[in-house]
Amino acid sequence: MSTRTEIGEGPDVVERLLATAAAPVAAIARAVRERDISLVVIAARGTSDHAAIYAQYILGTRNRLPVALAAPSLASLYRATPRLANALVIGISQSGRSPDVVAVLDDARRQGALTMAVTNDPASELATAAEHLVELGTGPERGVAATKTYLASIAAIAMLSAALRDDPSDAPALAAVPAALAAALEQEALVRDLAGDRADDERCAVLARGIQYATAREWALKVKELAYVLADPYSAADFQHGPIALVEPDFPVLAVATAGPAMPEMLDLFERLRAARARLLVVSDDQAALAMGDAVALVPGTPEWLAPLVAIVPGQLYAWHLARSRGLDPEHPRNLSKVTLTR
Amino acid sequence: MSTRTEIGEGPDVVERLLATAAAPVAAIARAVRERDISLVVIAARGTSDHAAIYAQYILGTRNRLPVALAAPSLASLYRATPRLANALVIGISQSGRSPDVVAVLDDARRQGALTMAVTNDPASELATAAEHLVELGTGPERGVAATKTYLASIAAIAMLSAALRDDPSDAPALAAVPAALAAALEQEALVRDLAGDRADDERCAVLARGIQYATAREWALKVKELAYVLADPYSAADFQHGPIALVEPDFPVLAVATAGPAMPEMLDLFERLRAARARLLVVSDDQAALAMGDAVALVPGTPEWLAPLVAIVPGQLYAWHLARSRGLDPEHPRNLSKVTLTR
Repeated sequence: MSTRTEIGEGPDVVERLLATAAAPVAAIARAVRERDISLVVIAARGTSDHAAIYAQYILGTRNRLPVALAAPSLASLYRATPRLANALVIGISQSGRSPDVVAVLDDARRQGALTMAVTNDPASELATAAEHLVELGTGPERGVAATKTYLASIAAIAMLSAALRDDPSDAPALAAVPAALAAALEQEALVRDLAGDRADDERCAVLARGIQYATAREWALKVKELAYVLADPYSAADFQHGPIALVEPDFPVLAVATAGPAMPEMLDLFERLRAARARLLVVSDDQAALAMGDAVALVPGTPEWLAPLVAIVPGQLYAWHLARSRGLDPEHPRNLSKVTLTR
Repeated sequence: MSTRTEIGEGPDVVERLLATAAAPVAAIARAVRERDISLVVIAARGTSDHAAIYAQYILGTRNRLPVALAAPSLASLYRATPRLANALVIGISQSGRSPDVVAVLDDARRQGALTMAVTNDPASELATAAEHLVELGTGPERGVAATKTYLASIAAIAMLSAALRDDPSDAPALAAVPAALAAALEQEALVRDLAGDRADDERCAVLARGIQYATAREWALKVKELAYVLADPYSAADFQHGPIALVEPDFPVLAVATAGPAMPEMLDLFERLRAARARLLVVSDDQAALAMGDAVALVPGTPEWLAPLVAIVPGQLYAWHLARSRGLDPEHPRNLSKVTLTR
C-alpha cells in the first residue's frame, strides 16, 4: 500500500519541509535579489512539470517573474540552449536522475545562471549540477506514482515565492497548510464512493482555471497512471476553445475550483456543462461550485496561491480508489518504472 | 466543405505569406537586434498555443531565445503580470479578438516591451494593441476548426526565426515548403482509408518529440474537435514517464517523427509500443519509422525546423476523414463557435 500510505503522509511532508527548507530557500531568495534576476526557467518532466506550471502562476502573479518552462530536449537533443545567464534556472526531479533535466542545469550553470535543484536525493546528479539545493526530504517514495514528492515540490516553490516577498501573512498561511491537508484526507470515504460510481468511465476531462491548472494536469496524470482512464486535462478557458465539442450527455468531467478570480468563469462553465448534461465532480471550497455536481469539499480559508497544495490530495485519493474500483492494483501500474531515464 | 477546402489551401497560404509578411517580419527582427531582446513571451490560446510551442522550440534552438508561454490568465484574471519590459511579447490569435491575449499585449506594451501581433484580422483589437503586426492573410477562415490559420501562424514564426539569423540556406528552405505541402495533400486517399480503419476508436495517444511536439498537440486537438475522439497528445519523453501505462493490445497511437536528433528515441519508443501490441500510425519522412506501423510518408528533404509546417497537413486530413468515417459532420462540430471570448 505504498502509494496510499504516501498520499496520507502529506501533512507531515509539508510540516517537515517548512522547517528543513527554510534556510536554503532564503539563500536562493537572497541571490535572486542580489543578482537582480528577472527570469525563471524551469526544467522538469512528467509530474515535476506540473510543479513547474504551478511555479509559472505563483511566481508570475506574486513575484512578477516571468517563468519559462524549458523544453528539456532543447539541451539534450538539440545541444542548442537559449541564453540563460541572467535567469534563475530550476530543475525539478524526484530522483534527480532525469538526464535531460540535468543537461539543462549543467548548461545553465556553465552560462553563469543562478541554478537550483529541487529533488528528493541530495546525492543525485541534479543536486550536484546545481549551485543551490532544496531537498524535498519526504523519505523514500516507494509508490510508482509520484504523490508526496509532487506535494513537496509545489510546497518548495510556494516557500520560494514567500521568501521573495515581505508579506507577513505568508508564513502563517504556509503553516496552516498541514491542517488543511489533514482535513482533505478526511474526505477519503466520500472520495472512494464517488470513484466507485465512476468505475466504468473510460475517459474524462479534468478542468481548472488559473492557479489550479497545475492541479488539473496532475490529477489527470494520476488517473491515467493508476486507473488507466484517459483523463484529459484542460484549462477551462482552452476547453471552451474546442474540446467542449466532446461533451455529450453523461460525459464525465472532474473539476477543481477554489476561491479566487477564476471562480465566476468556472461557475459559468459548470452551468454550460450541466446544460449539456455532463456528469460533474467538483473539488472546491466554494458552496456555489460544490452545488453544481458531486462534490468534495475543502476547508475554506486557504489563500488561493496555496490552494493547489490542498486540492491535489482528493485528486490523488480519487485516482487511487478509481483504480481499485476498476479491479486494478494502483500499487503496481503496468508498463511503468519509478525512474525514467529520458535522454 | 469549408474546413476540407481550407486544409487544401495550405500551399497557397504559405506561398502568399512568404511574400506579404517579409517586410513586417524584417522590421521586427531589426527591433529585436537594436533593443538586444533576450526573452520572448507568447500569449495564445487553443490552436494558437500550439504555434507558441513551435516557437519555443525553433526560437530556442535556432535563435537562442528563451520563450515563455504566458499564462494569459495572469493578465486577465490576476491583473498581476510579470515584468516584461525587455521582452518581445507576441500575441497569436486568428480572430485577434481573444480578450485575454489582448490583455497581455496591452500590459506588455504599457511596460515598454516590444510587441507583435500575429492575426488574420488587421483591424482587430490584438492588431491595434501591438506595435508590430504580421497579418496572416489567409482570407476568411469559415471552418470552425482552425487549419490554414494554424499553418500560417507557424509559417510566420518560421519567417521570424529566419529573419533573426543570417543563414543563406533559410530562404530557399522556406520557399520549398509549398511544394512539400502539395505533396502531403496528395496522400489524402491513403489518409482517408486509414481513418476509415480507425472509425471505432474512442481514444488514442498522439506522440512526437522535440520540434514536432507542437504537431502532436495540434493534431490531437483537431481529432478531438472534429471527430470527438479523446486524443491525448504527449511528448514521447513524457509519455514514457507515466501514460505508457495506458497501452494495452490494440491501443491506438498516432505519431509524428521526422528526420532529426529525436529519431533514435522515437524508433525506440515505436519498438516498445509494438512490443505492447499498440496499433501505430506514423507520419514520417524516414523509412525506418514508416516501417513501424501504418504509414503516411512525407517527401524527404524538408529541414527539421520546417517539418512541422508539412507534417500537420496529414494530421488535419486525418481528423477530417475520421469525423466522416464516424458519421459526423466535420464542418459543423457540436458545442463550438468560431470565436471564443475567454476573459
